[in-house]
Amino acid sequence: MSKLKNDTFIRALLRQPTPYTPVWLMRQAGRYLPEYNTTRARAGSFMALCRNPDLATEVTLQPLARYALDAAIVFSDILTIPDAMGLGLAFVEGEGPTFARPLREEREIHGLNVPDPGELRYVFDTVAQVRRALAGEVPLIGFAGSPFTLACYMVEGGPSTDFHHIKTMLYRRPDLLRRILDVNARAVTAYLNAQIEAGAQAVMIFDTWGGALGHAEYREFSLAYMQQVLDGLARECDGVRVPNILFTKGGGAWLEAIAASGCDAVGIDWTVHLGSARERVGARAALQGNLEPVVLLAEAETIRAGAASVLSHYGRGSGHIFNLGHGVSRFTPPENVAILVEAVHELSRPYH
Amino acid sequence: MSKLKNDTFIRALLRQPTPYTPVWLMRQAGRYLPEYNTTRARAGSFMALCRNPDLATEVTLQPLARYALDAAIVFSDILTIPDAMGLGLAFVEGEGPTFARPLREEREIHGLNVPDPGELRYVFDTVAQVRRALAGEVPLIGFAGSPFTLACYMVEGGPSTDFHHIKTMLYRRPDLLRRILDVNARAVTAYLNAQIEAGAQAVMIFDTWGGALGHAEYREFSLAYMQQVLDGLARECDGVRVPNILFTKGGGAWLEAIAASGCDAVGIDWTVHLGSARERVGARAALQGNLEPVVLLAEAETIRAGAASVLSHYGRGSGHIFNLGHGVSRFTPPENVAILVEAVHELSRPYH
Repeated sequence: MSKLKNDTFIRALLRQPTPYTPVWLMRQAGRYLPEYNTTRARAGSFMALCRNPDLATEVTLQPLARYALDAAIVFSDILTIPDAMGLGLAFVEGEGPTFARPLREEREIHGLNVPDPGELRYVFDTVAQVRRALAGEVPLIGFAGSPFTLACYMVEGGPSTDFHHIKTMLYRRPDLLRRILDVNARAVTAYLNAQIEAGAQAVMIFDTWGGALGHAEYREFSLAYMQQVLDGLARECDGVRVPNILFTKGGGAWLEAIAASGCDAVGIDWTVHLGSARERVGARAALQGNLEPVVLLAEAETIRAGAASVLSHYGRGSGHIFNLGHGVSRFTPPENVAILVEAVHELSRPYH
Repeated sequence: MSKLKNDTFIRALLRQPTPYTPVWLMRQAGRYLPEYNTTRARAGSFMALCRNPDLATEVTLQPLARYALDAAIVFSDILTIPDAMGLGLAFVEGEGPTFARPLREEREIHGLNVPDPGELRYVFDTVAQVRRALAGEVPLIGFAGSPFTLACYMVEGGPSTDFHHIKTMLYRRPDLLRRILDVNARAVTAYLNAQIEAGAQAVMIFDTWGGALGHAEYREFSLAYMQQVLDGLARECDGVRVPNILFTKGGGAWLEAIAASGCDAVGIDWTVHLGSARERVGARAALQGNLEPVVLLAEAETIRAGAASVLSHYGRGSGHIFNLGHGVSRFTPPENVAILVEAVHELSRPYH
C-alpha cells in the first residue's frame, strides 16, 4: 500500500499538528453532482450502485476530482447490514428505505444472526478498489450505522418520525431490543474490521437516530452498543493507527459521555457551538463538524462567513476536522462546495 | 370569575411552595381517548372541532373527568393563526397539516398581515366557555405556536423533515424570513393576550421546530421572536399573575438562553436530565417536563418507575410541573394515564 501524500485528516483525528484544517463532507458523493446521477442511472437502482464495486468506486472518486477534499468515504449505505441479514431492503422513490420483513416477533428476533461476510463482500471489494485507485492521495474512510440506528430501521421497517415500534419495544420488552442490538453490534464490528482489512484508513459510526432517545436510554441502548463495537475494533492495520469517529446526530447534550467511550473523534451537529463542544470534550477526542448543510445553498459570502465562523468557534490548534453537521443536501449547487473547501483551507491556516 | 380551588400548577410556575408536584400532559385531550374520537366524529373534521366552542369545550374537559390533572389546556391547534392569515389550512389524513398557499414569493410575504381578531373569535369563545365550565377546579392554559414554528409550516406548506425551504430562505433572504417572523410575533402576542383576556390563567408557547436550527440561528430566528412575544404579553389579568411557559423541543443545549428570556417556566424534553437542567437554569425559571411519552405504553411498574425517576432528577422543592417531553401518543392506553397521574401525586409528596 502506498504511503499517504495528504495525511492531514488522519493527523487531525489523532490531534497531531497539521498546516490547515482538513475537510470532507458527509454524503460528498451524491445527488447534488450531475456525474453521480449519470452513474446512478447506469446502475439502475441505488442498491445496484452500492453492489457494483466498479460503479461504487467511480462515484466515491467523483467529488475528489472536483474538490481538494482531504478524505474519501467509500460509497455505500448504512442499511447493507440489515439487508444482508435478509430483511428485504428496498428503496421506494420518495419514501426512503423500507424493509419487507420488519423485526417485531420474538421468534424472528431470536433467529436474527450476524450476516455471512460473503453477503457483504461487495462492500469490502469496493473499499479495496477505491484504496488502490486513490494511490495514497488522501485517506479512505469506511463506515457503518450504529447498532441502535440500524435497529430503528429494522424494527420500524422504514423511516419514522416517532419511532413508535422500537421505543415501545424498549419500554415493554427491553430484552428483545437488547438481543437485536447485540447482534447488530457484533455485525457492525465484523463489518468495520473487514473494511479496515480491505483498506479503510479510518472508520466512522453514524448514529443518526440515537438523538431521539431519552438521556438515560441513549447511554443504555445506543452508546453502550457503540462502545461494544469500539471495544472490538482493530485500532491499527499493518502497524498504522486507524482512527474512528462516533457521530450521534442530536447528541449535543451527551458529548462528555460520547467522548468517554474512548473514540478518537466525536461528530458534532450544527445545534452545538463548536467552542463549547471543545471545552466539554477537552483532550479526550478530536471534533468533526459542524456547518449547517443548508449554508451551502446560500451566496458565496454566506458560505465563507459560515466556514469562518465554525473555524473561529473551534479556535487555535489541531484536533478539528471540518465537515457539515449532516449530509450534503441534494439541492446544493456543486460550485458552492468548491467555495467551501477553498474557504476552509485558506481561512484555517492562521489557526495552525 | 371563581377563585381557584387547585392552584398547584400556577404556584409551581411561580416557584412557590406546593404540597405535591402538579401534573398535566401535552395533548391530554386527544385520539388516545375513545370519547375524544366520538366527539371528533360528530364534528366531522379536526378543524370543525377546533372551530366549534361547544365541542372544543367538551373535549378540553374529557381528560379532567378521567384523571386528577392539575390543569386544563384549551383544545385548539397551533395553526389557527396561519389559517386565519388565509393560507388555506387543510388536514390530510396520514399527511398532517398542509397549506394550499405556502409563503415563498416576496410579494406574498410583504402582503402578510396580523389576522383580524374576529377570524380567531372561536378560540377566545372556547377559552371563555371552558373557563366557566371549569368553575375554578383547576387553571386553564392558553397556547400558541412560536413565530418560527408557525413560519416552518407557512413556508414549507406542511410537515418537513429537513426544512429545506425555510432554511434556504434563512440563509439566502433573511430579510424575508424576518418579515414573516415579525408578523407572526405580533399575531402570537395579540392571540395570547386575547386568550388571557378571555380567561386563560397561564399561556404556553410551543416551539416545536426551533431545535432544527443552528445554535446561533436559534437565538436570532426563534428565541428573539419568542422574546418579542414575551415583551408584549400581559403578565397579569385582574391583578392576578398569568405565568408563561416557553418550550423548544430539541432545545436542550440552549436552556440558559431560553431561561434568560424572562419566561416563567421552561419546557424540557426527554433528552435532558432534569437535574442538570435545574442546575443550568437555576432560580431564573420553573421547569416543566420531561417523561418520554412512549413510557405511557409500558407496564404499570415501568410507568411508576419513570415518574419516580423524573421526580428524583428534579429533586426537592417547588418549581417543577410534571409533564411529558412531548404530546401523549395516540397509542396510549387511557388507564396508563391514570397510573401516571396517581404516581406523580403520590411519589412527589416527599420532595415538598
